Amino acid sequence: MKPPIGRDTRLCMSLAARPGNFGSRFHNRLYERLGLDYAYKAFTTNDLDGAMRGIRALGIRGCAVSMPFKEAVIPLLDSLAGSAATIDSVNTIVNDDGRLTGYNTDYSAMRDLLDRAGVAPELPFSLRGSGGMAKAVAAALRDRGHRRGTVVARNADKGRALANTYGFDWQVEVGDGAAVLVNATPIGMSGGDETALAFTPHVIARSAVAIEVVALPAETPFLRAARAAGKVTIAGADIAVLQALEQFVLYTGVRPGDDDIAHAAAFARGEVD
Amino acid sequence: MKPPIGRDTRLCMSLAARPGNFGSRFHNRLYERLGLDYAYKAFTTNDLDGAMRGIRALGIRGCAVSMPFKEAVIPLLDSLAGSAATIDSVNTIVNDDGRLTGYNTDYSAMRDLLDRAGVAPELPFSLRGSGGMAKAVAAALRDRGHRRGTVVARNADKGRALANTYGFDWQVEVGDGAAVLVNATPIGMSGGDETALAFTPHVIARSAVAIEVVALPAETPFLRAARAAGKVTIAGADIAVLQALEQFVLYTGVRPGDDDIAHAAAFARGEVD
Repeated sequence: MKPPIGRDTRLCMSLAARPGNFGSRFHNRLYERLGLDYAYKAFTTNDLDGAMRGIRALGIRGCAVSMPFKEAVIPLLDSLAGSAATIDSVNTIVNDDGRLTGYNTDYSAMRDLLDRAGVAPELPFSLRGSGGMAKAVAAALRDRGHRRGTVVARNADKGRALANTYGFDWQVEVGDGAAVLVNATPIGMSGGDETALAFTPHVIARSAVAIEVVALPAETPFLRAARAAGKVTIAGADIAVLQALEQFVLYTGVRPGDDDIAHAAAFARGEVD
Repeated sequence: MKPPIGRDTRLCMSLAARPGNFGSRFHNRLYERLGLDYAYKAFTTNDLDGAMRGIRALGIRGCAVSMPFKEAVIPLLDSLAGSAATIDSVNTIVNDDGRLTGYNTDYSAMRDLLDRAGVAPELPFSLRGSGGMAKAVAAALRDRGHRRGTVVARNADKGRALANTYGFDWQVEVGDGAAVLVNATPIGMSGGDETALAFTPHVIARSAVAIEVVALPAETPFLRAARAAGKVTIAGADIAVLQALEQFVLYTGVRPGDDDIAHAAAFARGEVD
């Protein structure tokens, strides 16, 4: 049994402009199931420097970092792990006795999922988006050996910059003939473009692998179409869980079993009580 | 039912060189019983300024302050309530949208308990101790109209300073003839001078009121002797609960019922599960 929160409890937290509840639910449920004396709470802030001062001063064990803090936080840390250094973006901070190290578990989760799906580096890809997750995916593809790929983004500055950083092409519209399709835009996300399809049925039909970064809903129109067409898929919900799991391991040193992970993920998504 | 900890949960905390678990247990148990979306956690720090920066940056709702921070924290706050200003000592911080106000609920709890016990201001007192709690008691006695009293302290500088501040006498040894006896030293405390008696049986016999500041054990030798002799008593355990309750009300705006308070206090002392 998890002991009640007290002086020995280690606090983990998150910082985001618009905090969600996925992390709090996922981590706290795992602490309960594994009997770990930890607690997790989502925060927002208008003072990132003050928040980092507080993390150091109070010995807060770890902190997930979301938009718009992923790059701004870097100068406030003591060092970057490879996962964060490779994309100059931090989504996870680990506090070892006042020494703050930045990680990027979106990047490492993406790499793991690409490995598990056995996506061949020879396959050309088409990556829609130019934000933080697009960067994590582009870096993971590059670092797995992908050399042929196109960043598709309306925003020419951001799209070109991302493509140049990782040695890929950039274009405004989705072209034809990519074997690996990645949606790293909000297309298909709950509360927005929910019914929109990130790639056309024709493009999906000609592909081999579909990667969806949107985690809510668990099945977007793009993912549904790709599954129906029998493609290899990587779902945003799986990326979300794996990156949260990597944070959990970094904070606690404990790797939960598959049952516990599946339960905590379902609980975090509100599917079970 | 209290919701699980998440983005809307308000965090309260404590800061002490050697944090205990009384506050965490008391507050968290009341949150549970009253279904309030709060969580409470004890912290220590080597960086008081950083801790205050963190409280502001993260919107932490309230913070209990113990030794050695009660005076050092004052310049880091925006204002002092009367209870803290009157003794230049803060044991409670309330954060209203980034504006930090210092309170002293030891002082206000002490005043309330003196009122409830009907201790007459004409009675001369003998107050052992010269630390933070001695100060809170001396100020409460002075502010209730007590004019005749002696601070008894081995440390001449601290004892004299405390006595002078509130217009009382100072002496090194306990004298005779005080109607109100106050122990604000660690004499009788668990893990220290546990079997020692703060006042002699002779002095206790001649008194009318016995006030014990030590909260653990709930019954010290001094308190036991005073009760056995039929004196009016104020127990350290009651001071501890009342001051924590006042913090609870300041943080949440909710005043729990007597049953809930009694249960949470017993839980905090480890007497019930």
